Amino acid sequence: MAALSFTLAHTDTHSKARAGIIQTDHGAIETPIFMPVGTVGSVKAVTQQQLQEEVRAQIILGNTYHLYLRPGTQVLEAAGGLHAFNGWHKPILTDSGGYQVFSLAANRKIKEEGVVFQSHIDGSRHLFSPENVMDIQRSIGADIIMAFDECPPYPSEYAYAKKSMALTHRWLDRCFARLAETPDKYGYTQNLFPIVQGSTFPDLRKQSCEYIASKEAAGNAIGGLSVGEPIDMMYEFAALCAENLPANKPRYLMGVGTPWDLLECISLGIDMFDCVMPTRNGRNGMIFTTEGVLNIKNKKWATDFSVIDAGMPCATSNFYSKAYLRHLFVAGEILGLQIASIQNLSFYLWLVGQARQHIIAGDYASWKTGMTDKIKQRL
Amino acid sequence: MAALSFTLAHTDTHSKARAGIIQTDHGAIETPIFMPVGTVGSVKAVTQQQLQEEVRAQIILGNTYHLYLRPGTQVLEAAGGLHAFNGWHKPILTDSGGYQVFSLAANRKIKEEGVVFQSHIDGSRHLFSPENVMDIQRSIGADIIMAFDECPPYPSEYAYAKKSMALTHRWLDRCFARLAETPDKYGYTQNLFPIVQGSTFPDLRKQSCEYIASKEAAGNAIGGLSVGEPIDMMYEFAALCAENLPANKPRYLMGVGTPWDLLECISLGIDMFDCVMPTRNGRNGMIFTTEGVLNIKNKKWATDFSVIDAGMPCATSNFYSKAYLRHLFVAGEILGLQIASIQNLSFYLWLVGQARQHIIAGDYASWKTGMTDKIKQRL
Ligand SMILES: [Zn+2]
Ligand SMILES: [Zn+2]
Repeated sequence: MAALSFTLAHTDTHSKARAGIIQTDHGAIETPIFMPVGTVGSVKAVTQQQLQEEVRAQIILGNTYHLYLRPGTQVLEAAGGLHAFNGWHKPILTDSGGYQVFSLAANRKIKEEGVVFQSHIDGSRHLFSPENVMDIQRSIGADIIMAFDECPPYPSEYAYAKKSMALTHRWLDRCFARLAETPDKYGYTQNLFPIVQGSTFPDLRKQSCEYIASKEAAGNAIGGLSVGEPIDMMYEFAALCAENLPANKPRYLMGVGTPWDLLECISLGIDMFDCVMPTRNGRNGMIFTTEGVLNIKNKKWATDFSVIDAGMPCATSNFYSKAYLRHLFVAGEILGLQIASIQNLSFYLWLVGQARQHIIAGDYASWKTGMTDKIKQRL
Repeated sequence: MAALSFTLAHTDTHSKARAGIIQTDHGAIETPIFMPVGTVGSVKAVTQQQLQEEVRAQIILGNTYHLYLRPGTQVLEAAGGLHAFNGWHKPILTDSGGYQVFSLAANRKIKEEGVVFQSHIDGSRHLFSPENVMDIQRSIGADIIMAFDECPPYPSEYAYAKKSMALTHRWLDRCFARLAETPDKYGYTQNLFPIVQGSTFPDLRKQSCEYIASKEAAGNAIGGLSVGEPIDMMYEFAALCAENLPANKPRYLMGVGTPWDLLECISLGIDMFDCVMPTRNGRNGMIFTTEGVLNIKNKKWATDFSVIDAGMPCATSNFYSKAYLRHLFVAGEILGLQIASIQNLSFYLWLVGQARQHIIAGDYASWKTGMTDKIKQRL
């Protein structure tokens, strides 16, 4: 079938914000887009039906590191890939496992060949190389697959960041070579996105963008941000990378962020986002709404029988009350985690959908200012 | 509005099985029926929408002990009762808290007045009496409310069982008196079901049935079974109580049981059941299906991509595969708990629905034998 294509529908004149459409063999994605994280093939506490009908997700993420360990490529291949395995037949993106190897695995050793690490589950030893990470992602079968990279921590020394970036670039060549040698496994096209690195050094970031752009990939990603640096620095480097990556390809900022981070980064020219924040913070009782942020465990919600968020078209948000949701959290009920996850993801998807409409309408910049003030409020 | 009514649609000629309809102010319940347990106002891991559309529950249970402690009657009254609070607008039944006080609370002391106990949550001291348990159930606002009783453990000495039964009968009088003195809180009728006790002594059980029947309540319950006695003894006493309770009122066997227990007790003349088994065992990976019982954590399901249960009309059962459900359990994903709970509850509701059809068709006894053999199998 066909490689991923990107059509720009509108570019804002007062900012770098763009509205576009990504076409994949599993359907279209309207950008800017937020991608819910489905670590081991399940967006935590949300059913596939809810993901489609309530959250209105257009694409979800899977983590190569987690899926490789459980259920493993043998099961995924026997199933006919992740789409068939988990029943999500819209687009899927998988990361390369690089980030998880650095954040979760034990005793990792980086070599030219790849990374040797121990599973965080059973301590078993494994090697991730550009080649076998491409093979694993072939077995998982995501529509968009990510290059195997090294994500340096913040802060990093210049020398280390430079060496690491060069390694990421050499690994990228090996990713493309391996992908070219291996056929699609399930009859649809898998599209490799390279990842810009270079830590917080403008010259390295520019070099990396040039190298990545030279690959003429179907889309490009910005990695190594949102790893502990100050928020203004994150915006600064997101802007710099967006400027130095091709305008005719989607730009994916990995691991970002809060709802207001999304609005800011959209204005810098970013098209795709993922983050565990809506689900993870949701499970801790932090609820994002169209009126602001609330800690649902707070006593003040005990008798607030207004619905969770009347500002969105999500059925769950308009069905349960704040008081009931608070009660579920206080009593430790699983349903609380389900409702909070649906609310937060629906909100993220609603927000990027609104952003898209305002980009097309031509008033994105002014809309963003008002919306940011509103949704950042602590209720 | 109107008191609960019960219409017998059909009584089996080869067994004591009955098919009927219970009318409440929140709608009709077709019997025999299984009632999912929603301890603190939420059937664990199942949304209200799933409960209605997938599980097809007709009535759910709430626990007075839990709801009294959290969210408390103040919040429930402010909400306008439990139906308004949790958004479940079909019938609700609440137990009296007696059973939980004996199984969960600490330092309980039984006196003529009632039971003094300490909360399992914060150790605070409380008194449950027939009067305040009626008041609490008024505040919760269930359609069917249960008498405050003492549930003796198994085994009990005859003398203790007799004394305890007499106390339960005196408390029952106080329940009816209190209820007569207090108006419905939310504009619909709350119906008190008395509870037969008497442990495993036939003469006490008969005496208790007579006393309970003399109250001419809208329905009657059998308590103090399924508390550790052998299964044949449970069946024996369920049969004895069913025979000695009015035929023109629904009979509710509390806390029972496995799917095959339901089929057996339906043939003894029981109309209503509740049990935490489908949800609790489901969360531990025990899956009830139309083909038998399976431990979904077992390695044998790792590459079984057949749907969980094609034998039922539940969308969830026909969407996810056994392999995917196993993966979710192995990886500790919340979605596994959700799917298992929906499957098991759907199965219980499907089973009592099938039982009802076969009672009406006149072949209940023969159908039950074949079905019991099938669903009891370990897959
Ligand atoms: Zn993040
Ligand atoms: Zn039970």
